[in-house]
Amino acid sequence: MPTDTMKKIVSLAKRRGFVFQSSEIYGGLKACYDYGPLGVELKRNVKNAWWRDVVTQRADVVGLDCSIIMHPDVWKTSGHLAGFSDPLVDCKNCKERFRADHAPRATAGAECIYREGGKSDGKKLKGVVGAQGYVCPVCGSGDLSDERQFNLMFRTNLGAVDYLQEISAQIGDLAALDGAARMAKLHEIVGKSAVYLRPETAQGMFVNFKNVLDSARMKPPFGIAQQGKSYRNEITTANLTFRTCEFEQMELEFFVEPGTDDEWFDYWQKTRRDWYVGLGITPEKLRLRAHEKKELAHYAKACSDVEYFFPFENAAGEGEWGELEGIANRTDYDLSKHAAATGKDLSYFETETKKRYTPYVIEPAAGADRATLAFLCDAYREEKVADKGNEDDFRTVLKFHPRLAPIKAAVFPLVKKDGMPEKAAEIVAALQDAGIAALYDHAGAVGRRYRRMDEVGTPFCLTVDGDTLEKGTITVRDRDTMRQEIIAVGEVVAYVGERIK
Amino acid sequence: MPTDTMKKIVSLAKRRGFVFQSSEIYGGLKACYDYGPLGVELKRNVKNAWWRDVVTQRADVVGLDCSIIMHPDVWKTSGHLAGFSDPLVDCKNCKERFRADHAPRATAGAECIYREGGKSDGKKLKGVVGAQGYVCPVCGSGDLSDERQFNLMFRTNLGAVDYLQEISAQIGDLAALDGAARMAKLHEIVGKSAVYLRPETAQGMFVNFKNVLDSARMKPPFGIAQQGKSYRNEITTANLTFRTCEFEQMELEFFVEPGTDDEWFDYWQKTRRDWYVGLGITPEKLRLRAHEKKELAHYAKACSDVEYFFPFENAAGEGEWGELEGIANRTDYDLSKHAAATGKDLSYFETETKKRYTPYVIEPAAGADRATLAFLCDAYREEKVADKGNEDDFRTVLKFHPRLAPIKAAVFPLVKKDGMPEKAAEIVAALQDAGIAALYDHAGAVGRRYRRMDEVGTPFCLTVDGDTLEKGTITVRDRDTMRQEIIAVGEVVAYVGERIK
Repeated sequence: MPTDTMKKIVSLAKRRGFVFQSSEIYGGLKACYDYGPLGVELKRNVKNAWWRDVVTQRADVVGLDCSIIMHPDVWKTSGHLAGFSDPLVDCKNCKERFRADHAPRATAGAECIYREGGKSDGKKLKGVVGAQGYVCPVCGSGDLSDERQFNLMFRTNLGAVDYLQEISAQIGDLAALDGAARMAKLHEIVGKSAVYLRPETAQGMFVNFKNVLDSARMKPPFGIAQQGKSYRNEITTANLTFRTCEFEQMELEFFVEPGTDDEWFDYWQKTRRDWYVGLGITPEKLRLRAHEKKELAHYAKACSDVEYFFPFENAAGEGEWGELEGIANRTDYDLSKHAAATGKDLSYFETETKKRYTPYVIEPAAGADRATLAFLCDAYREEKVADKGNEDDFRTVLKFHPRLAPIKAAVFPLVKKDGMPEKAAEIVAALQDAGIAALYDHAGAVGRRYRRMDEVGTPFCLTVDGDTLEKGTITVRDRDTMRQEIIAVGEVVAYVGERIK
Repeated sequence: MPTDTMKKIVSLAKRRGFVFQSSEIYGGLKACYDYGPLGVELKRNVKNAWWRDVVTQRADVVGLDCSIIMHPDVWKTSGHLAGFSDPLVDCKNCKERFRADHAPRATAGAECIYREGGKSDGKKLKGVVGAQGYVCPVCGSGDLSDERQFNLMFRTNLGAVDYLQEISAQIGDLAALDGAARMAKLHEIVGKSAVYLRPETAQGMFVNFKNVLDSARMKPPFGIAQQGKSYRNEITTANLTFRTCEFEQMELEFFVEPGTDDEWFDYWQKTRRDWYVGLGITPEKLRLRAHEKKELAHYAKACSDVEYFFPFENAAGEGEWGELEGIANRTDYDLSKHAAATGKDLSYFETETKKRYTPYVIEPAAGADRATLAFLCDAYREEKVADKGNEDDFRTVLKFHPRLAPIKAAVFPLVKKDGMPEKAAEIVAALQDAGIAALYDHAGAVGRRYRRMDEVGTPFCLTVDGDTLEKGTITVRDRDTMRQEIIAVGEVVAYVGERIK
């Protein structure tokens, strides 16, 4: 039974300033999103919680922040330049371009029914499934182009070279070549200045391994952590910020002595799963899923995904497991490859035991946007809170963990006079001075203001009334229990500060 | 008198893990840098200080986080697609490609002396300065190509289209066209899927102006703030992270009623200059420089740069004013342009006064990397601290403001026995649990450990000794005064926490 939960979340996200479509006034851009005033705070809180828990609070992890554009040879060594691609096919009937590995399977040589031109009102026609064994996902036709490999890395060019001018200058030579040789020549011309937007932050940690060892005096087991954008020219994007071409990662490469890697793999699986639960994710909606052998990347000894049960709509109804984070045992594959390619020694020498080894790597790689989306979806509730037979009986509330809530406290004057607005503004300023995100609101009835704050997940609402001015007390209302309690104005900063840790 | 300050800072930055060359094991990449374990903390602290002071602590500013790839039409409207370019020239003698507007001026038709082939041991030859009125900055030749406009935006392509295949498929048609028509056709083919890496974050705030107004219920005067990477394919890069192709901005677009813009322009000039001083920058090395009329961008009514006196080496010796931040009055130029291009209403209607206007924009646009570099350079000191006639008489110290120091506290066991290491580790854990970046160090004499911490700017060193275990006291040594004081172990977190605010 679809309950439209995801649609409601998307609508709330836009209305209250969590997520906007990028360049919306220009008609938007495919699967690009902007975080609005509340979304940016939510995502910052997610990223800061990760940094604090993975880097600051650990003696065995240090941070790193690499440039997104790296030397192109890094991607040659990592295998991304040759192998990071999807098989693409064009439908000759409806012109759809799609991923062969995601297309509906069908028996080669069997009959297929498809819509002429791919239009929903197109004539139904009969065709034959080709040797590939699948049909077009849009119109059902089996009349398809050959598969071609489409590299998912975004390519751009660094330096004062205009490759189009080069191509133009060599147009005669290019025209004289046959197809394959011409493509090779075109790639050569563009390749001279080509650089790529990283498809993962991980390689930055591998190529800086030695620099970090030398400067930060770390020794295995230790980790290097990084947050930052990565780019993949995904063919299929969907579900708000779940799969987008530009996305932010939170990756940890944890270097260990070979032989201890299984143990550390287990440790990080558990630690990372618990992290989401500790920040409020419903445990029943979270699972660890071990990859089957055939799913594993060629360099991985083992991999597990932390998955969340998102309220995405699909053919089966509502709800779908989606990956939040992959924890992989990458072995010594990356360090060994970079060492071989550069001739640099990327092994570790243990002075005590005189042992030299290339560390194995356990990699918990999380998506900052996906985590943010999961926290948003998980926080979303519709609750019946009264029984008066009108719309006020219901409330929409985002039950964010207080550490993640974009606004920690809202302060209301009960009425817009008698010095109450000034007092409320003063309390907001005191909270903000302590680095606590706080908001002042005087519009409408206090009940309305509560509902507005429930809808954006503010854990504490404080109302300034007559007693505040006379006796120095203030009413705190709790988002989740909706209970009110009276505290001293002087305690407000400590009260809120204590509860958002 | 050059004192090699910058060279020493660059060397320290690499040795201690502030800044590494990007992809160094692959020979590095032109003007791309990675922040190491300490650098990433320093830059995070700079960015967080900005966010806290500009967003969290202000009721009139909200945040935003836009995708780096935006709709290409945004750059058509903003003028970047047509006008964001440098004039490039090729030297026919030495093949150097350089910016015409930065080349050494010379009188057209006059004689010029240049080195054959640009080599330092090349024969001296006589030439003639061309009509352009400048010579090659490398060899001095006047024999130059025509100027051509080189757009500084990085172009890439979004979606499952391979434009090289398109070019290859149309090679016959392309070869038949003349030069200009062929270039136009090539641009058309690439343009179909072309997107750009933003050259500034500002446009994200303008195209989201209405979304923010509607969702966050703001009204002028109010600001939208954003931190994030921007990209410019700079021809000339120099001075570590000062001018790079990939860089991070901290921009605020502050929307005000026309007529109040001059006042707000003054306010933000002062506020932004004071921000750097408040975080410890030497006031004498900071200045506000108003742009002259001819320097102003065509859309700007006024602009002032906050400049820092960097220890860069140049022909005149050591030291050069460099821009940290530009504060511009952009008028209603951007909102008006986007409104005209999209047909969307980007004006503001003031309900109280029934006034409708398009806000003017005051933009304080800071560079996060430049600010970080300025804080690093300004903190750098070499001090004589003793008079024993050996190397220990001198120390290198980074006198960071405590808010910015990458490590806030280091904890040392006096000796590696008697439970002191365990006690020290326990104190480190207590600090880290409170979110305070702390480090444990037991290597070498305590004096050595102090020096290592001075060199990375750690404000507090705490030494666990016999008294710690017996009486519960610990010695705190202050980085700047080098004075020691004894406090209770139970007070450590509060002591450090209080002093790093």
